Amino acid sequence: MMKTDDLVAQIRKKNSFLCIGLDTDLEKIPAHFLHGEDPIFEFNKAIIEATHDLCVAYKPNMAFYEAYGLKGWRSLERTIGYLNDHYPEQFTIADAKRGDIGNTSTRYAKAFFEEMAFDAVTIAPYMGRDSVEPFLAFEDKFAILLALTSNAGAFDFQTEKMGEKELYKRVLKKALEYKGAENLMFVVGATKAEYLGEIRRMVPDHFLLVPGVGAQGGSLEEVCQYGLNDRVGLLINSSRGIIYASNGQDFAEAARSRAQELQYQMKQLLQQR
Amino acid sequence: MMKTDDLVAQIRKKNSFLCIGLDTDLEKIPAHFLHGEDPIFEFNKAIIEATHDLCVAYKPNMAFYEAYGLKGWRSLERTIGYLNDHYPEQFTIADAKRGDIGNTSTRYAKAFFEEMAFDAVTIAPYMGRDSVEPFLAFEDKFAILLALTSNAGAFDFQTEKMGEKELYKRVLKKALEYKGAENLMFVVGATKAEYLGEIRRMVPDHFLLVPGVGAQGGSLEEVCQYGLNDRVGLLINSSRGIIYASNGQDFAEAARSRAQELQYQMKQLLQQR
Repeated sequence: MMKTDDLVAQIRKKNSFLCIGLDTDLEKIPAHFLHGEDPIFEFNKAIIEATHDLCVAYKPNMAFYEAYGLKGWRSLERTIGYLNDHYPEQFTIADAKRGDIGNTSTRYAKAFFEEMAFDAVTIAPYMGRDSVEPFLAFEDKFAILLALTSNAGAFDFQTEKMGEKELYKRVLKKALEYKGAENLMFVVGATKAEYLGEIRRMVPDHFLLVPGVGAQGGSLEEVCQYGLNDRVGLLINSSRGIIYASNGQDFAEAARSRAQELQYQMKQLLQQR
Repeated sequence: MMKTDDLVAQIRKKNSFLCIGLDTDLEKIPAHFLHGEDPIFEFNKAIIEATHDLCVAYKPNMAFYEAYGLKGWRSLERTIGYLNDHYPEQFTIADAKRGDIGNTSTRYAKAFFEEMAFDAVTIAPYMGRDSVEPFLAFEDKFAILLALTSNAGAFDFQTEKMGEKELYKRVLKKALEYKGAENLMFVVGATKAEYLGEIRRMVPDHFLLVPGVGAQGGSLEEVCQYGLNDRVGLLINSSRGIIYASNGQDFAEAARSRAQELQYQMKQLLQQR
């Protein structure tokens, strides 16, 4: 269980709003892990140990675990278990992009919020209200709704006008009417920082989860310029840029060093305000 | 591996285009299963044994398995393994509603098409081209894209106009331009049968997966009137209506009986053409 206040307090204390994406891929982690019993978990644990004081959230990407079947699912359960046992202050996000009819969304919510005790899960909006509200019914848990994503395909539908507003703005507007909207956050890609100002005006109080800084080319400074609010209101995700900073024996130091750079920039950006 | 031709041949042979949804829920299956080692798999196996000659596809709903964590994932793997070993002619659909940036969608595709050897997976369109194409890159595998879903929330965005066309029509039109579009099918809810005629004109050759007959209130006859094409082109899903037809000792007979009713109606509807 985590309240927004706890997340904000953690951000203030650490001078960081960094989220580290655990997109753990057996083909990219240092080779010496491959001899172990659970390479994915062991790698995640090493990354967490090297970075936990510099970030406020971890975001395992479900696809990378599901791709390894039962073994991957076990690595995922061990990872979230480790975080909850050792670093319960960390905000944990299941990057799952789920969404289905009501009774099915309820099942997904139970999977992520109860079975695995994540604090938040990412959700796709296409199926509308009854696909999202089941996630919002859990106290002190968060549904992070896709609004404007960081990929090229975002221009297929999200930025196209539906009536007077682009689809992603319709999603923001509509979602604010959903029951439990106070438990919403929104995904807004850093690669489209120029859109952030208007988004911030539409959802002044909600946290935004911002992927696409780093590997996908977004600028941290621009995101902050348009996206920060009085309670910070941003979680900036970096995945590959941190966890694969090196694939040698120095991978943990390299990951820490990259996280440190970002945290240092964040500290400066927070102090400028 | 399954080609569309194989699916059509199976449909012709069985006079059925029924898909059975395996939304298996420990709270709804007959109590005597709960004493076993793997109640979900054992229930699925009993349903499959009771119905496989009446249907052409099975569709496990991922949420119901994920909700039980590692155990649920194991039940899922055993279920798809059982189908592929014993009834390889069955078309298997992972109802997952996935979709993410390219490298992540590739991971999901590997999870469902390679790790578990499903024939198809359901996909959400919100993130556009590069979230869908990775699924279309697999030969003789299918991505079933959400177009118009059967739930109330479909009216939030899907049926709203984007320019001159409703969003779900934009999705259909755009998706036909995606690389590998011949490996697409589309989800179209039976609760909106009146939309099916126009959808069929837009995608004359693609299969449509139609949920919402039965528990959600859609009419089989109407769906067929508007949706059948020269190669049938429809998979009609029923989940709860079949698998929970009874929760007593007679659950398998009751499921068979309900599947038989639907298959009989399908046979008649096919013969009328």
